[in-house]
Amino acid sequence: MFRPEVNRDILSPVSFLSRSAEIYPDKIAVVYGDLRFTYREFQARIQRLAGALLARGLGQGDKVVYICPNTPALLEAHFAVPMIGAVLVCVNTQLSASEYQYIIDHSDAKAVFVDNEFAGQVQPIAADLPKVSLFVNICEYTSGPLLKGPEYESFLAGGQAAPPEPPATIDENSLIAINYTSGTTGRPKGVMYSHRATCLQTLGEIIEAGLRPDSVYLWTLPMFHCNGWSFPWAVTAVGATHVCLRRCLPKEIFRLIEKESVSHFCASPNVLLTMICFPEAAAVKLRRPLQVLTAGASPSPAIIQGMEDIGIDITHVYGLTELHGPHTICAWQVSWVDLDPETVARMKARQGVASITGLHMAVVDRETMRPVPHDGQTVGEVVMRGHNVMLGYYKDPEATEQAFRGGWFHSGDLGVVHPDGYLQITDRASDVIVRGGDMISSMEIEEIIYQHPDVLEVAVVSTPDPVWGEAPKAFVVPKRGRTPTEEEIIEFCRSRHARSKAPQTVEFGQLPKTATGKTMKAKLRSREWLGLERKVS
Amino acid sequence: MFRPEVNRDILSPVSFLSRSAEIYPDKIAVVYGDLRFTYREFQARIQRLAGALLARGLGQGDKVVYICPNTPALLEAHFAVPMIGAVLVCVNTQLSASEYQYIIDHSDAKAVFVDNEFAGQVQPIAADLPKVSLFVNICEYTSGPLLKGPEYESFLAGGQAAPPEPPATIDENSLIAINYTSGTTGRPKGVMYSHRATCLQTLGEIIEAGLRPDSVYLWTLPMFHCNGWSFPWAVTAVGATHVCLRRCLPKEIFRLIEKESVSHFCASPNVLLTMICFPEAAAVKLRRPLQVLTAGASPSPAIIQGMEDIGIDITHVYGLTELHGPHTICAWQVSWVDLDPETVARMKARQGVASITGLHMAVVDRETMRPVPHDGQTVGEVVMRGHNVMLGYYKDPEATEQAFRGGWFHSGDLGVVHPDGYLQITDRASDVIVRGGDMISSMEIEEIIYQHPDVLEVAVVSTPDPVWGEAPKAFVVPKRGRTPTEEEIIEFCRSRHARSKAPQTVEFGQLPKTATGKTMKAKLRSREWLGLERKVS
Repeated sequence: MFRPEVNRDILSPVSFLSRSAEIYPDKIAVVYGDLRFTYREFQARIQRLAGALLARGLGQGDKVVYICPNTPALLEAHFAVPMIGAVLVCVNTQLSASEYQYIIDHSDAKAVFVDNEFAGQVQPIAADLPKVSLFVNICEYTSGPLLKGPEYESFLAGGQAAPPEPPATIDENSLIAINYTSGTTGRPKGVMYSHRATCLQTLGEIIEAGLRPDSVYLWTLPMFHCNGWSFPWAVTAVGATHVCLRRCLPKEIFRLIEKESVSHFCASPNVLLTMICFPEAAAVKLRRPLQVLTAGASPSPAIIQGMEDIGIDITHVYGLTELHGPHTICAWQVSWVDLDPETVARMKARQGVASITGLHMAVVDRETMRPVPHDGQTVGEVVMRGHNVMLGYYKDPEATEQAFRGGWFHSGDLGVVHPDGYLQITDRASDVIVRGGDMISSMEIEEIIYQHPDVLEVAVVSTPDPVWGEAPKAFVVPKRGRTPTEEEIIEFCRSRHARSKAPQTVEFGQLPKTATGKTMKAKLRSREWLGLERKVS
Repeated sequence: MFRPEVNRDILSPVSFLSRSAEIYPDKIAVVYGDLRFTYREFQARIQRLAGALLARGLGQGDKVVYICPNTPALLEAHFAVPMIGAVLVCVNTQLSASEYQYIIDHSDAKAVFVDNEFAGQVQPIAADLPKVSLFVNICEYTSGPLLKGPEYESFLAGGQAAPPEPPATIDENSLIAINYTSGTTGRPKGVMYSHRATCLQTLGEIIEAGLRPDSVYLWTLPMFHCNGWSFPWAVTAVGATHVCLRRCLPKEIFRLIEKESVSHFCASPNVLLTMICFPEAAAVKLRRPLQVLTAGASPSPAIIQGMEDIGIDITHVYGLTELHGPHTICAWQVSWVDLDPETVARMKARQGVASITGLHMAVVDRETMRPVPHDGQTVGEVVMRGHNVMLGYYKDPEATEQAFRGGWFHSGDLGVVHPDGYLQITDRASDVIVRGGDMISSMEIEEIIYQHPDVLEVAVVSTPDPVWGEAPKAFVVPKRGRTPTEEEIIEFCRSRHARSKAPQTVEFGQLPKTATGKTMKAKLRSREWLGLERKVS
């Protein structure tokens, strides 16, 4: 009696496009500078791109790499590529030529789309990519192609409109995208997403972010980061407006927030920090309520307070590339209205609870895999399972098996569960400092140093110690015009904490960051250890 | 590499309960009179009910009938019954003993839960239900059971807490509920819902209704109607508050809206009509924005205007039991702000566009199955497919085959598509009047008569005519204190419409309604035709 062709459709986020194009044909789908695409135009461009890819012989299962900032071309890719059954591989724009070579080759990409701003890193390796049969130049910086191949707009113009959407041959568990991890240890790994999982993550993000047809979403979060947490699909699904953005500079962010009446954006705490530090931040006039989701690191109380001073409502979410981005949300509780701002900031800085489509998460003892007590003290590993866990690592069954051991996805993050059920990450497993056998959480020390009135940013890593083997070292970025001393910082920690956990040394300066705004602790650590390999299980 | 136990969970709306109970244990989940259940208590009661059902030998695939108004017991059933793999059968509370006998027997129910208010209709047949091994009395009206079997609260108290949720053996395409159609023609049919489809419908309703953790939902829509359009699961999924309601009386509705700060409710136009006609409606003070979804019939301009006068935002949705309730939503367009109120009311009275999880709908020529032009004039049959189409009719493969012919679900409703892509139902196929070969839409005539200043409600059906075979007849409910004449109504139609389509006769009085507020045109028609069988293909 079950008749799939009538009562079952595959779950795919691609299917939301034609619905929005039908309901809101004349509504603005995409804004980029002076450029405006209505939903009708957005759909037509996507269909032409899909047609052009089909005409080049690309189809089901073929990988298509994009090296592109948050411009309309990358949004279009999120629909056109999976629409023909192909697999989207969005790559970080900040990589080196050799990293691009590795990823393009490993992903088996047949086509590579490159924004001209980043073509310089691809030119030297273009001849050494035998699997790639097509380069497409997305030209905004130069009038003509830099790589041998068509220019994006003329490539699009050559495509037939209205290809199948999606082809009947696609199964909901088939690949829609591969996202390469930043590879803090070893080679980057290709995280595989399915149509079904991205579709459910899309519905979940709509609900958790509260996206509506009148929402305006600013593209501060890179789309190459977990497919922009599924927002290319989520914003489109509700018929809202995308505001594209090539560079994440605070002046431009604030200008667009005002000009386009932005209602939502996502960003790492690092981007929020540049916004707070922007001299004219206080003069910004919000035309409507503005909500930001932040992840990548725990937002400091200074960031939470700073955002709220501007009038921006901040919500902390947490996840990993392997989870399609956010898996948890620090859901707000009515009882928090009675708390002082500092306590609220501490509550909001926690990673929170599983999202409506995340559902399954536990913090477990690393030996026994049993859940730790909800006492806010017992540290365990954060593990997840469910709809939004990746299919696995591309061509790496061994790493997949390792990540999935015991029937859970292992995040590698350590955390505690508070009595109210909220997760708080205490450290990456690899960031723990082992001082004479004692496990010291680098984040715990960072949290204390953040309370020092002169500190803007801090990172704590292990440094060699002749007596204890390792000891904590703090890298501090002072606030503008402040000059705290090493002794002050150490004394500040000692007065608030067990003496043994205070940093041994303090260094002042800027922190190295990844393209997605994460502090590269591995880099700081390897500098301390002079390239010595060191592992904490 | 695909490891279902890690990266795939079954789609089931049951799984949202434990998440909300974990995040919001002390928040009010259910309000009923002076009764308040927190999410912790709500979950505990559900787990005890599930445990008690298990202890009675009920489990996977077993059918459990509920004859119960919108009280907490019926909400609890929506989680406890599917939690053990059993199938929930919510039955209309307004049926006769013989109708109950047919449905209980046809559904193969092993357990029957009856609210005491309606036990009188079950008592006479209780001995003639050999498949039923358990009656449970939900007692609010009498202190003790009326049927032979335990009282609900003591039955609950006997259950062990914390049963499996949901059992590992449940497949996402397995049955979660059966809903019997009202059976306007022939015997009621059992519409089968799956865990997957209800889960997706739940996510869709959350998005389309804009449900949030701080929402307060008033239970004006019967839960026995398509499982309350999935709102038992949707409201719970976001951790919002249910406000239960035994009887849909306007005074009580308004009292609860004020007292409980209601943000959302769903209701038929019939219920909205009683609200508008309530003398103290104008004095109602809304404490927050209030949104209503209405379906079952097209809301008249008077209803739309009346609701908005009270300050209630009204959205028209449309669907059928076979579609889990709403499949379309009359999505609001920015361009409507410039239109006059009368035009806006006409726009909002249309059935609209496919919802975010409905997705697939077409209006097709009944012969060729080809889509009709979007001209607002060419009438075709409304057909659907996708996630929220039923699995089929229980034990009736023939009717299922008939409903699914040509790879679509056939709604039996006739409609047009306007140039903006919005569906407007022009009639039920069975409500069309064939006057000498001309097809006349009864709804088209009703729409004109609704514009008459003295008319509150109207229904047009076919009546025998010696010359033309059939002709339209109007049944009119005048506004309070108004006395329009037959001649006035006919003349009003003639002046606004092709003369041949004006009603031949007009009768004044009340309209017969179903429990869900639909005018029973079939009843009016059969009275006109003196019991003659008549079919319009």
